[in-house]
Amino acid sequence: MTDNVEKYTISQFTEEVPNIIEDLVTREVPLTIILNNQELVTLLCSPANLDCLAIGFLFAEGLISNKSEIKKITIDGQRGVIRISTEEGTEFAHELLFKRLITSACGRGAAFYTAADAQHPSKIESQIVISPKEVYSLVEKFSYHSQVFKTTGGVHSAALSDIHNILVFYDDLGRHNAIDKVFGHCILTGIPTEDHVVLTSGRTPSEMVLKVAKGKVPILISISAPTDLGVRLANDLGVTLIGFVRNKRMNVYTNGWRVVTDGR
Amino acid sequence: MTDNVEKYTISQFTEEVPNIIEDLVTREVPLTIILNNQELVTLLCSPANLDCLAIGFLFAEGLISNKSEIKKITIDGQRGVIRISTEEGTEFAHELLFKRLITSACGRGAAFYTAADAQHPSKIESQIVISPKEVYSLVEKFSYHSQVFKTTGGVHSAALSDIHNILVFYDDLGRHNAIDKVFGHCILTGIPTEDHVVLTSGRTPSEMVLKVAKGKVPILISISAPTDLGVRLANDLGVTLIGFVRNKRMNVYTNGWRVVTDGR
Repeated sequence: MTDNVEKYTISQFTEEVPNIIEDLVTREVPLTIILNNQELVTLLCSPANLDCLAIGFLFAEGLISNKSEIKKITIDGQRGVIRISTEEGTEFAHELLFKRLITSACGRGAAFYTAADAQHPSKIESQIVISPKEVYSLVEKFSYHSQVFKTTGGVHSAALSDIHNILVFYDDLGRHNAIDKVFGHCILTGIPTEDHVVLTSGRTPSEMVLKVAKGKVPILISISAPTDLGVRLANDLGVTLIGFVRNKRMNVYTNGWRVVTDGR
Repeated sequence: MTDNVEKYTISQFTEEVPNIIEDLVTREVPLTIILNNQELVTLLCSPANLDCLAIGFLFAEGLISNKSEIKKITIDGQRGVIRISTEEGTEFAHELLFKRLITSACGRGAAFYTAADAQHPSKIESQIVISPKEVYSLVEKFSYHSQVFKTTGGVHSAALSDIHNILVFYDDLGRHNAIDKVFGHCILTGIPTEDHVVLTSGRTPSEMVLKVAKGKVPILISISAPTDLGVRLANDLGVTLIGFVRNKRMNVYTNGWRVVTDGR
């Protein structure tokens, strides 16, 4: 965790009175992803778990779908560069470089809304269900994890869980990065995401829903608000979208049939 | 405001009990910017003030610097397309399309960290000063504006102010969009940004500091946290970076000489 924060000497004012104190500030580093010798993108991110981030990013962009496609990963942490070679070679990267989609609510370029809608994930049919109690309990565990890491006020968290327990947890400056780290971890370690749950501390605009749908995750739980495009996509893609989970209250926006209140 | 929200029928649970209610959800629309007949980028954003957003985006990317360069703006709101022609023609757009920088904390592609560091803004020398009382008062006014618009929990706000009053206020799904709308508005209406203050509801990682420095704004006030790269850039670029302004407390991270406690 210490890697993720940096000490600064700052003036902290109370009313009019300044105090010189040492404060912890979240670190932000650039990470350039070079895919098959072609510079793809530079992400700004928290410095930990860069391999998970890069692999999760490539997964979200539809450039890899599983570990077997990855031939080699080399990280130069000092220079902020990660080199990844895949079986497929460079063919799709080129198209990607020509498209920039900048997302609103916490942007991450994705080709989803372009003509190349071939990337659109198929509808999720998972029959998994969850009870409100299980949602509240998961969010409580998630928030506990988040608290542990939230020393600087500057990070978002994401997790993969089953309906009972948090399995993978990451935080990052960016909530997109946090989710990419979760998926990257799952790909690198072979944890399946189908029939699982993703939790995020951030909002759920369209591209968060798309990220989760790409991983075939049927249930997306957020502490915060969705957007209308996020709601419509979740509806169409078969994702159960749950938001504003706070103090044993929650909003179920789409595919509410997966939320069951009676005993199963 | 009604344009920025959409009604949805959702299940709101309290404990185990669902209630079918109508809820307001923030709208999210794609906006494709076509600069000199060349598709530049698709932003996801709140649907209002798309001209300000597009112009502010082009300004932040270094593609325009003032209103006189803009020959024509045509908005097709239905299709989410804005066409802008400039005097300069297409020459820089091409390079931009080849670089993707995806920012962590709420991404917005910018060419800042690439080899093309020619875009780097020069150090801000403005001698404007501000007192803690003035900061608290501005944040109070800013928060009041934000409250008015914050019906859905899903927006960020940004404003331009002098040391006493909010002059320009926008909100958007994305805090980058909100800031771009502020700068776009200033460019389109001829409001100067030098010697002024920018307020943001969001965090201040590096690219927020760069955006503000590009507009020659000497003081950046955030309700939330910076990152270390944001702090370092603000220091180098002569920006007074103030964060965590809450309940008459605040942190001054850089260029604290602009914060004066005694009478001027």
